[in-house]
Amino acid sequence: MVCPVITLTTDFGLKDAYVAEMKAVILSICPNALIVDVSHQIEKFNIRMGAFVLASASPYFPEGTIHVAVIDPGVGTERQHVLVETGKGYFIGPDNGVLTLAVRNAGGVLHVRRITDKHFMRSKVSNTFHGRDVFAPVAAHLARGRLAKEFGPEIGKIAVPEFARVSKRRDALIGEVVHIDDFGNIITNFREKEVALVGYKPTIMVKLRNTKLKLKFCKTYADVERKEPLTLIGSHDFFEISVNQGNAAEIFEIKVGEKVTLYRH
Amino acid sequence: MVCPVITLTTDFGLKDAYVAEMKAVILSICPNALIVDVSHQIEKFNIRMGAFVLASASPYFPEGTIHVAVIDPGVGTERQHVLVETGKGYFIGPDNGVLTLAVRNAGGVLHVRRITDKHFMRSKVSNTFHGRDVFAPVAAHLARGRLAKEFGPEIGKIAVPEFARVSKRRDALIGEVVHIDDFGNIITNFREKEVALVGYKPTIMVKLRNTKLKLKFCKTYADVERKEPLTLIGSHDFFEISVNQGNAAEIFEIKVGEKVTLYRH
Amino acid sequence: MVCPVITLTTDFGLKDAYVAEMKAVILSICPNALIVDVSHQIEKFNIRMGAFVLASASPYFPEGTIHVAVIDPGVGTERQHVLVETGKGYFIGPDNGVLTLAVRNAGGVLHVRRITDKHFMRSKVSNTFHGRDVFAPVAAHLARGRLAKEFGPEIGKIAVPEFARVSKRRDALIGEVVHIDDFGNIITNFREKEVALVGYKPTIMVKLRNTKLKLKFCKTYADVERKEPLTLIGSHDFFEISVNQGNAAEIFEIKVGEKVTLYRH
Repeated sequence: MVCPVITLTTDFGLKDAYVAEMKAVILSICPNALIVDVSHQIEKFNIRMGAFVLASASPYFPEGTIHVAVIDPGVGTERQHVLVETGKGYFIGPDNGVLTLAVRNAGGVLHVRRITDKHFMRSKVSNTFHGRDVFAPVAAHLARGRLAKEFGPEIGKIAVPEFARVSKRRDALIGEVVHIDDFGNIITNFREKEVALVGYKPTIMVKLRNTKLKLKFCKTYADVERKEPLTLIGSHDFFEISVNQGNAAEIFEIKVGEKVTLYRH
Repeated sequence: MVCPVITLTTDFGLKDAYVAEMKAVILSICPNALIVDVSHQIEKFNIRMGAFVLASASPYFPEGTIHVAVIDPGVGTERQHVLVETGKGYFIGPDNGVLTLAVRNAGGVLHVRRITDKHFMRSKVSNTFHGRDVFAPVAAHLARGRLAKEFGPEIGKIAVPEFARVSKRRDALIGEVVHIDDFGNIITNFREKEVALVGYKPTIMVKLRNTKLKLKFCKTYADVERKEPLTLIGSHDFFEISVNQGNAAEIFEIKVGEKVTLYRH
Repeated sequence: MVCPVITLTTDFGLKDAYVAEMKAVILSICPNALIVDVSHQIEKFNIRMGAFVLASASPYFPEGTIHVAVIDPGVGTERQHVLVETGKGYFIGPDNGVLTLAVRNAGGVLHVRRITDKHFMRSKVSNTFHGRDVFAPVAAHLARGRLAKEFGPEIGKIAVPEFARVSKRRDALIGEVVHIDDFGNIITNFREKEVALVGYKPTIMVKLRNTKLKLKFCKTYADVERKEPLTLIGSHDFFEISVNQGNAAEIFEIKVGEKVTLYRH
């Protein structure tokens, strides 16, 4: 028996009961669901980071996996609940951009539906916790075999967030930091094809804040000495600025959202 | 095949092997148990917080769920191990109050038993880790189908902790902070019915420490501007003092256990 | 149906997508694997701590459990990937010492194999994330029933790390701190038999840094007053220096790796 997989990505942290409440609701509806945590330590209200982390993990899950993301500063307001169907799986959450990068990594949208049918929500929907009262039961009913079209009417498309765009100048590419991982690696929104535009050389010229740095372009962290900075294409296929066995974000004092410039050779 | 659900609530943190040891013991006895973490980041030895978090999560789990809570500053002393049977599920832990709120939320006690039968414990019970050596194997044997009455003799009742009582004065209600969640929301022990006693108005007069505050009573966080304080009935049905997209506990410098006064209109 | 158990021990933290990517890869290959987290909060690159935590948890898991440990500062270099077969289960990871203590606790090595067969790895192996691209798929294929010998050629033995040795002087034993747990307990590499050498007495003379301390030898934390220091054999069968309901590591300002001396009576 193969259990349907449901993943959870939230900014709830692990101290409180919130994540367990979502899991309890899912298991009450679909007892054989296999629930996998992607992360519950997305920075509070940081939709960009949630979008990045979900988009990093989701491509590796089995086909048909149901991904739930709840980074939802607008909970209780009129922003919509959406269920997105792709060729590889389902994405459920608020329509605030948190799903967009993952949907793109899943080959793009087949159908977007607004979740409206209250039969698939908890009978009393709180104003503060749609993760438990809307998204978890919707995911569980979908896992149990209900069809996507039963949850609500099709809408044209999902919200597209501002972040994660690269602009091209004659001599440079301008992007931004989309994530600082737990090792302090600075992950940008440049993909390999954009790095190819500036040219693979032994070194790459990068501007972080107002400082230009000439950094080695490597295959792996250990290609440089301990504590030496480097750049590489990380395991997520994004361009990273790192320090071998060190914390690049602390050393360069960089935060998520800051601009990064790559100069052409 | 539906697997029996066992939940875990501890103050062990996630760095060490302790939680994995409990899960390993459970799976060795009951390989098809479905183990769900409620929280392992209860503050060390904070029975009140453990009681609150377990009581928040437990109502959402399927009937028959077995809840294990190990916040146990008295491990190795003569405090008793109890197994509490309710109409909705089972609660296992030290008899120090950590189970009491959850048992109340489960409709109250059917039977309380002292866990005495050593056949259901690990053959060598350490003095320091009853979570692994007593509570985990007891939960696993129960999940596997042993009857509650096999574990030990019935005792009258469980310990009732001092916390979570509200006192009523002519002009005010006096309660306390039972939890600060990971968003910094200040959760009190006032339930909706008590807030109704002081009267729902657009604003509620609250005393935190020695400061009286006139705060909006809202339906959801986003009913006020970003960084503005508010009050509401949270998703746990308790009265909360919050700041929209901010950390109320830091702003008001409030800790668990402090008094909170609600003034009647 | 009993699901094969796979455990994960890493220094990846829980903020990022890394752990979820490993689980996604495992479930894509072996959908009925039961994945249990040992810890993802091993200090970055701290092989000693990873080795200790895995060795603490692994003895409690069912026979045949597959343990994966990824604390891997040398990822992408020429250090080898190994699959170790013991009488009790399997251990998979980089051959840098992280598996050694756990293998010893599992009764020692039956076979050590270098993992070389690329059919069991992801088709594109990154230079930075062998946890996802090598160790996770190897564990999943093993869980699904492939034989250990299919993964690569037998090699003589695994790396033996420098840590966790005790030296004996005429009047004292010299060991070291192998772990500080989340309660601040100072866990040393002395086992009960070595403590027996210096003699069980109501007190034990311990040197931490340059300070000699005469500390009570107890059965459990609560044998002394609140905030009083003590020593005991912890639940892992190692000699611990603790403070009842307090944080010994903070009080004594001790870190992992520091020397500890036990004086004979």
